[in-house]
Amino acid sequence: MIFSSLKLNDSETIYTQIEKHIYRSIQNGELFRGSKLPSTREVSQVMGISRNSVIAAYENLESRGFVRSIKGKGTYVIGEEQQEEKPLYMNWYSRRNQYSKTCEEMDIIKTEPKYEKGMISFKSIAPEEKFFDVEEFKRSFLEVMALEGEKLLNYGYAKGYRGLIEYLMSYMEKKGVESTHKDILITNGFTEGLDIILSSLTSPGDVIFCEAPTHHTALKLMKAYGLKVVGIPMDEQGMNIESLEEALKHYTPSFIYLIPSYHNPTGIVMSGERRRQVYDMLNQYKIPIIEDGFNEELLYSSTHIMPIASLAKQSNHVIYIGSLSKILFPGLRIGWIMADQKLIYMLESVKRAKNIHTSFLDQAAFLHYMKSGAFERYVKKVRKHYRDKYLFTLEQIKVHIPYESLWGEGGLHIFLHLREEINTRELLESCHKRGVIFMPGDLFYPNATNHTSMRIGFARLSEQEIQEGIRIIGEEIHKIPLEKQT
Amino acid sequence: MIFSSLKLNDSETIYTQIEKHIYRSIQNGELFRGSKLPSTREVSQVMGISRNSVIAAYENLESRGFVRSIKGKGTYVIGEEQQEEKPLYMNWYSRRNQYSKTCEEMDIIKTEPKYEKGMISFKSIAPEEKFFDVEEFKRSFLEVMALEGEKLLNYGYAKGYRGLIEYLMSYMEKKGVESTHKDILITNGFTEGLDIILSSLTSPGDVIFCEAPTHHTALKLMKAYGLKVVGIPMDEQGMNIESLEEALKHYTPSFIYLIPSYHNPTGIVMSGERRRQVYDMLNQYKIPIIEDGFNEELLYSSTHIMPIASLAKQSNHVIYIGSLSKILFPGLRIGWIMADQKLIYMLESVKRAKNIHTSFLDQAAFLHYMKSGAFERYVKKVRKHYRDKYLFTLEQIKVHIPYESLWGEGGLHIFLHLREEINTRELLESCHKRGVIFMPGDLFYPNATNHTSMRIGFARLSEQEIQEGIRIIGEEIHKIPLEKQT
Repeated sequence: MIFSSLKLNDSETIYTQIEKHIYRSIQNGELFRGSKLPSTREVSQVMGISRNSVIAAYENLESRGFVRSIKGKGTYVIGEEQQEEKPLYMNWYSRRNQYSKTCEEMDIIKTEPKYEKGMISFKSIAPEEKFFDVEEFKRSFLEVMALEGEKLLNYGYAKGYRGLIEYLMSYMEKKGVESTHKDILITNGFTEGLDIILSSLTSPGDVIFCEAPTHHTALKLMKAYGLKVVGIPMDEQGMNIESLEEALKHYTPSFIYLIPSYHNPTGIVMSGERRRQVYDMLNQYKIPIIEDGFNEELLYSSTHIMPIASLAKQSNHVIYIGSLSKILFPGLRIGWIMADQKLIYMLESVKRAKNIHTSFLDQAAFLHYMKSGAFERYVKKVRKHYRDKYLFTLEQIKVHIPYESLWGEGGLHIFLHLREEINTRELLESCHKRGVIFMPGDLFYPNATNHTSMRIGFARLSEQEIQEGIRIIGEEIHKIPLEKQT
Repeated sequence: MIFSSLKLNDSETIYTQIEKHIYRSIQNGELFRGSKLPSTREVSQVMGISRNSVIAAYENLESRGFVRSIKGKGTYVIGEEQQEEKPLYMNWYSRRNQYSKTCEEMDIIKTEPKYEKGMISFKSIAPEEKFFDVEEFKRSFLEVMALEGEKLLNYGYAKGYRGLIEYLMSYMEKKGVESTHKDILITNGFTEGLDIILSSLTSPGDVIFCEAPTHHTALKLMKAYGLKVVGIPMDEQGMNIESLEEALKHYTPSFIYLIPSYHNPTGIVMSGERRRQVYDMLNQYKIPIIEDGFNEELLYSSTHIMPIASLAKQSNHVIYIGSLSKILFPGLRIGWIMADQKLIYMLESVKRAKNIHTSFLDQAAFLHYMKSGAFERYVKKVRKHYRDKYLFTLEQIKVHIPYESLWGEGGLHIFLHLREEINTRELLESCHKRGVIFMPGDLFYPNATNHTSMRIGFARLSEQEIQEGIRIIGEEIHKIPLEKQT
């Protein structure tokens, strides 16, 4: 009997297990068209279960069209209809458009070496989980559920949860950003913020400026939307001002995208003076700015540096994208766009078209967490922690890695340029064999032209791992002959 | 002294309140460039607060560049730099592209009469909150937080939370959908599911078929992506098969979009036979199908009707979009795409480019809730509730509204066609004056051609409201002269 192989367990209802077992037996051919199922009475006796469970299973199978019960005779398998129809096969990959093709071709998760257990990975710049104040977050959640649980679980507003918008408005004011005629749209993290802006305000062929190197995800989105990306070289202060001026003589970009604080991937904090220079020049050419507030909150030594958005005062050409999720709760996916209120009003419709709104439960719990003061405590703690880790990594690099230049003042990563004849892709390959991976620098350049640089993310590694990993990278570099020609 | 107008409260720290007060005084001109602030000692005495709080506030203001403290002299307002720079003003609306323009022009929230307190609104088809099992959801949340809180709050995977994917796979199997070579991508609700598919697999100018009328949000997305939308007329069984065949002779659409169960806006449940006919014909012409599983879970009288995806068996041309969020927790924004595994692998990169992933905390809590059996209990309860409400609304309509045809077998709404000379836009205008609003039918037609239809959503109204609202609509219809020419 077909049930001899069935072991019942406690994790599902009895009738579901019976139903699934028969379904599987039909699928694998054990039961075929015309097979008679044992009577419900028989199954109930043999299996020692209630007959009602068996009846329920048989009825479900009948309603799904797999068996038919004939009165007074029994229940028979109908099985797959033998239409001999050839399955229809679509080659979905041939139907990709340029957008999805680019999203996939530039998907680092698919193109770069994967982390495997036991490896030392300098790839990630995700924060360390052990600092998350889970208990405080639980409390925030329970509070908001008690206050307005049902409401939060029903539809909310595209623009966002009102309390969170108000909170972030005053948070931005504290950073010196003028809030008159401004408004905020809540997004699913930074990435969606940039996606909303680019998809709404650019067209294929438009020019966009950015730092070279820049945040890989931003680069991916710009290219996916068919933009011509012009990378402006950086120096140790941030975007090079002469290069920017030169580029502005040749192009009128739709936007410039800037990451002034702990710039990704270099870790450079654009100096206050440079911010002013860059801002003034863009102002002169009337170029709108997308400012990425990336990890601004981690700034420990330069609290007096304010976002570029704060320089704009009454002007409406700076769009600021914020996201605490980079260091706090990335899993929640909460970010925001602060910009001209008319622009936000327009983008609200785009947000609604994309996914109605960001989870209201997450927004409300996040707000309560922020208001509890836990965030300030958290930031104080991790600032010091990441600062120490940065200094430790720096020290190890200085001992083991012969670099040409080293950029970065802190944050969660360091950017290195190695000597000319070293190709960091090849270096990655040899390090990978020894269980160490990092981000080759070409990923961050608009034209993937730079082959001698690399990003070292250290946030989630122990000192021991950092030490060993950096040592191995150094050893692999030393194996490369000095005179190697490229 | 400038502090005489300041009342301290308990909701913020003292120093923040001092800081904000001075900032505001600078903004509104009470304090101007060169003004001297009272000494910290003086403020602490007058306000009866600690001097450290005042010092902290002054230091913050200085770090923000608003005041300067001169040793031995005091603290002075720097104020706005008097550059006499004219603010830069961008006309963002002139920079919209076709996509964002369409998203806004078709944004019902902006174009249709708004709900105001005291109104009777038949606009909404959102579920009733009072049935949400908030306690069970809280339990699920606490469980997952205890099990893996930190992890859930850090970055997850674009494809979704593994446990939820597995759960939904077997959920779809129970609906009769073949799971071999299929996979699931978790999305922020149905809307994002459709957005991901259209943005990845269509190009402007492509033809797409849908029922006429159809889901307004779907229509908006298709038009926003520049698709040519061809609406196939419906009859009481669903999409009209002759019209479909006729259209297939003229066009080769990239996709057809179908809502077989409690079709929005008509409420029609496509019969099993019609599903088979439509499926076979599309199969013959090799047209990929996007199936919207909209409110399938509410089907009370037709549990034996399986999704169109179940007919496809080994074929890979049906893409199913599911979302329990339509009836359960819309605020969480959880939906999924089930399709060919290669296609899901590709779309995973698109999801990552759009917003990295859907909130892992929400996904995990949702999964535990589903597994607890609470969903089945919930569905049983609301099925009956909405069924009763449907029957009540039906009865009221029959008494008060002279309709030409009435579609819908249940769900959360009913669709009416009125006699030819009645324009439901004008009817809405006169009902609106009496505090009753509904959805005019033209919103749901690809070319907005139909002006005699309307959708009545009843889910969130009491019987009394339904009765009164329907009566008022009826009265307004009766005011329209029978011979009115259009």
